[in-house]
Amino acid sequence: MMPEPLHSYFESRCKMVDQALNHYLDSTRSQPEIIHEAMRYSIFAGGKRLRPVLVLAAAECCGAKPEIALPTAAAMELIHTYSLVHDDLPAMDDDDLRRGRPTNHKVYGEAIAILAGDALLTKAFELISKNAKIRGVSSKAVSDVVGQIAHGSGTFGMIGGQVVDIQMEGGKWQKRNGHTDILNYIHRHKTAALIRTSLQAGATLAGASPAQVAYFTAYGEKIGLAFQIADDILDIVADKRKLGKKGSDRANRKLTYPALYGLEESRRKAAALVEEAKGALKPFGKRAQILKQLANYIIERDH
Amino acid sequence: MMPEPLHSYFESRCKMVDQALNHYLDSTRSQPEIIHEAMRYSIFAGGKRLRPVLVLAAAECCGAKPEIALPTAAAMELIHTYSLVHDDLPAMDDDDLRRGRPTNHKVYGEAIAILAGDALLTKAFELISKNAKIRGVSSKAVSDVVGQIAHGSGTFGMIGGQVVDIQMEGGKWQKRNGHTDILNYIHRHKTAALIRTSLQAGATLAGASPAQVAYFTAYGEKIGLAFQIADDILDIVADKRKLGKKGSDRANRKLTYPALYGLEESRRKAAALVEEAKGALKPFGKRAQILKQLANYIIERDH
Repeated sequence: MMPEPLHSYFESRCKMVDQALNHYLDSTRSQPEIIHEAMRYSIFAGGKRLRPVLVLAAAECCGAKPEIALPTAAAMELIHTYSLVHDDLPAMDDDDLRRGRPTNHKVYGEAIAILAGDALLTKAFELISKNAKIRGVSSKAVSDVVGQIAHGSGTFGMIGGQVVDIQMEGGKWQKRNGHTDILNYIHRHKTAALIRTSLQAGATLAGASPAQVAYFTAYGEKIGLAFQIADDILDIVADKRKLGKKGSDRANRKLTYPALYGLEESRRKAAALVEEAKGALKPFGKRAQILKQLANYIIERDH
Repeated sequence: MMPEPLHSYFESRCKMVDQALNHYLDSTRSQPEIIHEAMRYSIFAGGKRLRPVLVLAAAECCGAKPEIALPTAAAMELIHTYSLVHDDLPAMDDDDLRRGRPTNHKVYGEAIAILAGDALLTKAFELISKNAKIRGVSSKAVSDVVGQIAHGSGTFGMIGGQVVDIQMEGGKWQKRNGHTDILNYIHRHKTAALIRTSLQAGATLAGASPAQVAYFTAYGEKIGLAFQIADDILDIVADKRKLGKKGSDRANRKLTYPALYGLEESRRKAAALVEEAKGALKPFGKRAQILKQLANYIIERDH
């Protein structure tokens, strides 16, 4: 369970994000219906909305209202979701289930799943550009955010991590040197990059200075890595049915923190990262309370 | 052959675009190497560079130097190329060859081809945001262009056309009513949307007024449709080896202009569209000379 006030905060911001997603995503009656249906299917499939809430929380930590960053917050969920839809494809991880429901390509077929992923990524940038129409947000901030998000989700960010992850599948990492470097590369890119980018984007839209944005970069980098370590631990210890997917990391002999360091040392590393993350937000004092609680929660959650 | 001065213009602008693409695309030595190699493989595979040249030509027609629009011009080629890489996938058109060379997934495998497409699309938006760093281009114009391009390449543009194209494959359109409507929908979206968007983007970056941008929208819509009709005609009549792909439209029983109207009527319709396109640029007088010649060339080319 989340402690208060984080619980109330997260609940209210998730609601804002869900309403925004419902508003921004085109109706399933818009032509061609099938693609809009496929996009909504994966967006409303029980995601935790962590990335969009981080966008809003960073903006608020910088003294702005959450509403000013809402289109970009929704965009981050679109990018996260597109990456899951493509990851699940037969040519990639070949997963039939995600969060207990059939994956996009199982329902709509591979061709539509590929296009739905493409469409979610494309729509994300349309939403970010919409953010320039919101009073109090400068066009300069928006074009900066487009660059940040494209960089964080591209080959030097999320996609780069995914590429190396695929290259190391089936235990191929066991034949390489530098396991720690490879593992850190994958986690920093595949997961942490998008989390870090969410925080940078929220702060930038709120008009934060480059120095302030850098604090969020440090915080995001560290909680992103902690989040992935916690995920790898959950993959092993959590109730499989609760997660709604099989403990597939072990089946694929994936390179993970628990595989390399064992459970206890992995937990210790995650906890140390969370402490560092909270330290990075010291300059914001009490305004960072929610983000500090969130950092703790990331390694304490059970799903 | 292209007439002068179009030939010289096209050659010099293609050179600018190729240099920009080479500069902006990350080196094949950047980690992870495989993804940057796969991206460059498809970008430097003999594309005509029509869309980026249209970006530059629209900017110049509005009195700007071509250099101010170069990052966005390169971005349009990235988006066009990503769409080809994904279209060629086994789950989509399942093509082994494009322009006489093995398709991306034949060389790098399906997983990397999917990610290379994703990465090209993502990089495109990074380049557009870079355009804000160029002197004389406002951040407002750049955030507008992000919106235009995302819309034109999304489900109400290029992706929408691709979805309906897939739905109608294998002769499925023969069982539907309204063949003309379906055909026009596919062409206007799958091909014309990106061509139209290239012109809008170039004009917008050059500081054109909304009324001026609308002239380019009309011109782009019409030459885009004419371009696709010409392509369908070429698929039937051109030397197969010259095109470097099989006349696959007929093999797939695709819905095309020649299939619906026959060759002669298709040629007549394309010619009428070209006349309308040229008419739309009347307000620009002599400054539109290149774009008018280009409209003629689109239906006269043999490849």
